[in-house]
Amino acid sequence: MEKIIELIKTEKPSKARSELLEMNVVDIATLMEDIEGKDLILLFRILPKDVAAEVFSYISKEQRQYIVESITDREIAGIVDELFMDDTVDFIEEMPANVVKKILKNTDENTRKIINHLLSYPEDSAGSIMTIEFVDVKKEMTIKDAIEHIKKTGIDKETVDTLYVIDANRKLEGVIPIRKVLLCEEGTLIKDIMDTNFVFINTLDDQEEVAAQFKKYDYFSMPVVDKENRLVGIITIDDILDIIEEENEEDFAKMNALEPSDEEYLKTSVFSLAKHRIVWLLVLMLSATFTSIIIRRYDEVLSSIVILAAYIPMLMDTGGNSGAQASTLIIRGLALGEVEMKDYMKIVWKEFRISIVVGTALAVLNFLRLLFIERVGVPVALTVCISLFFTVILAKVIGGTLPIIAKKFKLDPAIMAAPLITTIVDTFALMVYFSMATWIIGI
Amino acid sequence: MEKIIELIKTEKPSKARSELLEMNVVDIATLMEDIEGKDLILLFRILPKDVAAEVFSYISKEQRQYIVESITDREIAGIVDELFMDDTVDFIEEMPANVVKKILKNTDENTRKIINHLLSYPEDSAGSIMTIEFVDVKKEMTIKDAIEHIKKTGIDKETVDTLYVIDANRKLEGVIPIRKVLLCEEGTLIKDIMDTNFVFINTLDDQEEVAAQFKKYDYFSMPVVDKENRLVGIITIDDILDIIEEENEEDFAKMNALEPSDEEYLKTSVFSLAKHRIVWLLVLMLSATFTSIIIRRYDEVLSSIVILAAYIPMLMDTGGNSGAQASTLIIRGLALGEVEMKDYMKIVWKEFRISIVVGTALAVLNFLRLLFIERVGVPVALTVCISLFFTVILAKVIGGTLPIIAKKFKLDPAIMAAPLITTIVDTFALMVYFSMATWIIGI
Repeated sequence: MEKIIELIKTEKPSKARSELLEMNVVDIATLMEDIEGKDLILLFRILPKDVAAEVFSYISKEQRQYIVESITDREIAGIVDELFMDDTVDFIEEMPANVVKKILKNTDENTRKIINHLLSYPEDSAGSIMTIEFVDVKKEMTIKDAIEHIKKTGIDKETVDTLYVIDANRKLEGVIPIRKVLLCEEGTLIKDIMDTNFVFINTLDDQEEVAAQFKKYDYFSMPVVDKENRLVGIITIDDILDIIEEENEEDFAKMNALEPSDEEYLKTSVFSLAKHRIVWLLVLMLSATFTSIIIRRYDEVLSSIVILAAYIPMLMDTGGNSGAQASTLIIRGLALGEVEMKDYMKIVWKEFRISIVVGTALAVLNFLRLLFIERVGVPVALTVCISLFFTVILAKVIGGTLPIIAKKFKLDPAIMAAPLITTIVDTFALMVYFSMATWIIGI
Repeated sequence: MEKIIELIKTEKPSKARSELLEMNVVDIATLMEDIEGKDLILLFRILPKDVAAEVFSYISKEQRQYIVESITDREIAGIVDELFMDDTVDFIEEMPANVVKKILKNTDENTRKIINHLLSYPEDSAGSIMTIEFVDVKKEMTIKDAIEHIKKTGIDKETVDTLYVIDANRKLEGVIPIRKVLLCEEGTLIKDIMDTNFVFINTLDDQEEVAAQFKKYDYFSMPVVDKENRLVGIITIDDILDIIEEENEEDFAKMNALEPSDEEYLKTSVFSLAKHRIVWLLVLMLSATFTSIIIRRYDEVLSSIVILAAYIPMLMDTGGNSGAQASTLIIRGLALGEVEMKDYMKIVWKEFRISIVVGTALAVLNFLRLLFIERVGVPVALTVCISLFFTVILAKVIGGTLPIIAKKFKLDPAIMAAPLITTIVDTFALMVYFSMATWIIGI
């Protein structure tokens, strides 16, 4: 990349340009990552308008902002003109107000209206992720008419995989994959080859739902209709890839006591990262008050048999892990639609049986280990292992059911993962442990 | 669905068939889920061959096996003929030997050779997920020739989004999106419109790498070439969606002490679920030996100040959560390619600074709580809070770096998540805690 900048500076821009045009736009954007300031603008300006717009949609937020602030009004208009409408809207959403103003000032009345309309859809709704660049035809057209129509409207290149057939009121009547058009005779009527049995999305559908539809039907793009069933946009599968990623990362974060953020780790400041971590840590730290209350209540038991303390960490970790295993499977099952709320009792019963198997195995092995390796007395070993057995059962049933209960109360099941489950299970585990101790050892 | 089966049984199969054909194949497959035995075969047989094959690729493994075992050899040949080659191979891979034999017996010599060749690619390689149904043209062809060629080879419908231009040795020379073909004059030469600057995949590339390429370049399909750069197949984005899902679920599992499994929760037996959980629980339970050793070593400290035991759970949970937060961000950063091994020192330094911020906040708040709400003495409160501070630092640095070290040793970074990090941090936390206690309280 330095070489190319050198070429531009030594007044061989045409050579630089032709070298750049040998590359894929995504690769150009990747190479531009490390370039800043004037060099960035120099490089950006040498690209042909259409390539510049494509590259623009792949570079970082910071670089976009810098470019928009640096280039002329006319250049901005040129880029917005070439960008897909959904990319424009995504880009506007992340810019500060003064930049947005500069962009909107440089778009024509009509585009501005469309942008504002798209911005008005709720975040994460189908309307907010759809693009309005699609090909619509009428059912009375012949294939030849349709091709003429496409050529005339000079439609954008990326979104001509499917033709959408609409009536006079823009209601969607059918779809035709473009390959079908190619293989038919010129005189064939659109209505004779269109597929009327299509799946569509509503503008207000949540993006998670939209992603589920794509996964289910294996389509590459799907039409979006408004309340009156009028075709208003399409969603393409490449955007779905990003959404799936986003939703998964959100779950990874929540399941590990992090507030979700879509910033890259290395690009996020220390304070911002700390902020995303501290709330959950605080909440969980404070809820550990329960464990200290229980232990303090039993301090006499502990002071007479101090060795009991040695097995608290093992008991708590095993309980936490057992609960995390169950809750993970249920949280993901809910996310993928494999488990539903009505399965509540099935899950309780299944987790109960699993925990009997797992709990017995762990308790027996641990009993032998305590007796023959750690050489503790039978009463203590019994106390530890019976508590372990019950803790595993409690943990698995709690871990398996709390995500469903959360969903029932319209909370995100993902918060009922390892961190919270561990804290809850800890409390129960200690109660069981000390009750067992008083009962078995008889203090 | 019962209604349709009723229709078939009451000898109105043509009506049943036309009702079914109104539906999307995926929906037919969904409705068939609850149907078993003879009814399933009845229903399956009423579908036209092409629809039957499509439905077949969406139903469950068990239903597929049942159908193959029940229908005639000729019917099997018909389905395999209509199925995409990648679906056939996926399907064969999950069938028991006797069913595989029955299928292979009913395919022609050539198909059998292709199937065996595809089966020979390593699991999770690009070769094992590609399909061989693509359209290849020569660069000397005109658009008209190319369209004739497509019509003649009667290529399958789903995979004609891109034409692949190959030379006499089948080496890939360029690609053309089908919409470009549609918008050009009939006499245009393929070589004048083909894009020679394309991205391709090698047969032996890992599926995770392939998915990363798709995410990077936003393509809907990509060509797969062998060692000699000959075009051997293509991969389509709908399969990538499944792969991303699969890889994510694997990470969710590993990060929560589960062995990954691609079975649905409700469909998996209790013993199989228990088996996938017990190994990690055992490993983690046994590694808790370290915590019990430390506590037993300090039993005199504990017996003189029993209240110290009351804060062990809080200390351990906060440490575990702090470590889990850091490790999650690094594990996901590595998976998404946002973090690399060379960033090791940057991460250590970043986590260190974050932990100073977070640790200070938590320690100060906890100190006030212990003093004024739990009303413990200053020495104990100091011991707890200074240990908390150091534990958070240790946890974040360990959590942030272990995933990278794992990757360095070619282990999956995902195993360095909450469960293992917690166990490791526990040990350190207790060592710090008791050292602080002896030092501050001076026992």
